[in-house]
Amino acid sequence: MSKFTKYTKTSDYSYTLGAFPTIELLNKKSESLIKIVVSPKIGNRNLLQEILDLKDDAWIEESDRQIELLTKKGNVFVIGIFNKFESKIQENENHLLLVNPSNNGNLGTIIRTMNAFNMQNLAMIKPASDIFDPEVIRSSMGSVFNINFEYFETLEDYVAKFQNKLYFFDKSATHEISQIKLDKPYALVFGNEAKGLDPKYFEKGTIVKIPQSENVDSLNLAVSVGIGLYETSK
Amino acid sequence: MSKFTKYTKTSDYSYTLGAFPTIELLNKKSESLIKIVVSPKIGNRNLLQEILDLKDDAWIEESDRQIELLTKKGNVFVIGIFNKFESKIQENENHLLLVNPSNNGNLGTIIRTMNAFNMQNLAMIKPASDIFDPEVIRSSMGSVFNINFEYFETLEDYVAKFQNKLYFFDKSATHEISQIKLDKPYALVFGNEAKGLDPKYFEKGTIVKIPQSENVDSLNLAVSVGIGLYETSK
Repeated sequence: MSKFTKYTKTSDYSYTLGAFPTIELLNKKSESLIKIVVSPKIGNRNLLQEILDLKDDAWIEESDRQIELLTKKGNVFVIGIFNKFESKIQENENHLLLVNPSNNGNLGTIIRTMNAFNMQNLAMIKPASDIFDPEVIRSSMGSVFNINFEYFETLEDYVAKFQNKLYFFDKSATHEISQIKLDKPYALVFGNEAKGLDPKYFEKGTIVKIPQSENVDSLNLAVSVGIGLYETSK
Repeated sequence: MSKFTKYTKTSDYSYTLGAFPTIELLNKKSESLIKIVVSPKIGNRNLLQEILDLKDDAWIEESDRQIELLTKKGNVFVIGIFNKFESKIQENENHLLLVNPSNNGNLGTIIRTMNAFNMQNLAMIKPASDIFDPEVIRSSMGSVFNINFEYFETLEDYVAKFQNKLYFFDKSATHEISQIKLDKPYALVFGNEAKGLDPKYFEKGTIVKIPQSENVDSLNLAVSVGIGLYETSK
């Protein structure tokens, strides 16, 4: 049987590492499933049963070799291999808009947080982390299968397509996010982890800030987005 | 000259990786400094000058070999080696209390967030991540040098020493954190990344929650703490 090799950006497929995101894949995107690979060493039989309840034996291959090919760490016993799929964000809905997110772990954490606060649509401006990278999928806990997402070449491309009111998160803002009333549909806009947002964009919308001390340069991106989604979902 | 080897929990020393946390070390804990190691390949001369403005040449060693001994990745050009130090949290001040935090990156991000929201005191219940682990220091952006911290064997040991009113963050709570008025001094209590808090503790204080959908199991710990510190610092 042909083997799948380690993920690269140009792969047609990607995979979930571990039982929890694999179950999310089966629940939310089972039409994209290629196969489930299970290690003969799997300890938690309840998790395996939960997978078998969703997909029958024919979808499952037992292979330690295949798992070793896709993961370095020794603590993965279930992998779900799937075809990468197209996704589009929705019109007339609120969006989260990330400009040049570059850290896979942060992106996964942000997607997990979107799910917690019922934000369904993620727009990203390139260059940006690859949402199908197994590291993103893992740190999202499989939440990637539960949102809509779309990449844009530039912020101008996004603005040409959507009329969402833009709220730029930046420390230079006068207004705190908790003090303003947001016009819907809106887009909450956050910049790159290291560089933040380019001020040239600010004329396109409203600048808002999360009040914080001057002790540190800035909050971690995933924490900032978490606070932004929390405050605006209240 | 004797060389320092890779950090372990039992080392008497630890080190900052990169210029930014090294500058924090020099600004906040220079009495603990052993030496600064600089790579001959350092590109950013401004950062080197900033370091030289804080400590004179005698504290600086040029050595690629020493840097290679302490870091795998090739993108570190400055390391600050320091003696580990004692720290105690303050009485009659608010505390952040983490029960069994186990992820180094999360702990560093949380400490960075404490700084942003002026939370000065971190209590941790063992087993817990080692605050002196270079990975914690790095993800804190050097904020570890700017807070007070203390480890306790059990939650009971903490309670015996401090009278802070305990607020336990748990999804089972009836009250949302934004709806209650906190009695000072308080301790905001968060559980382990995977296991959360043991409900047996809840009788010792008040349970509060961050309102969120049922879509996911829970928020990432660093995001939860970020929202808790944001909401209570308002």
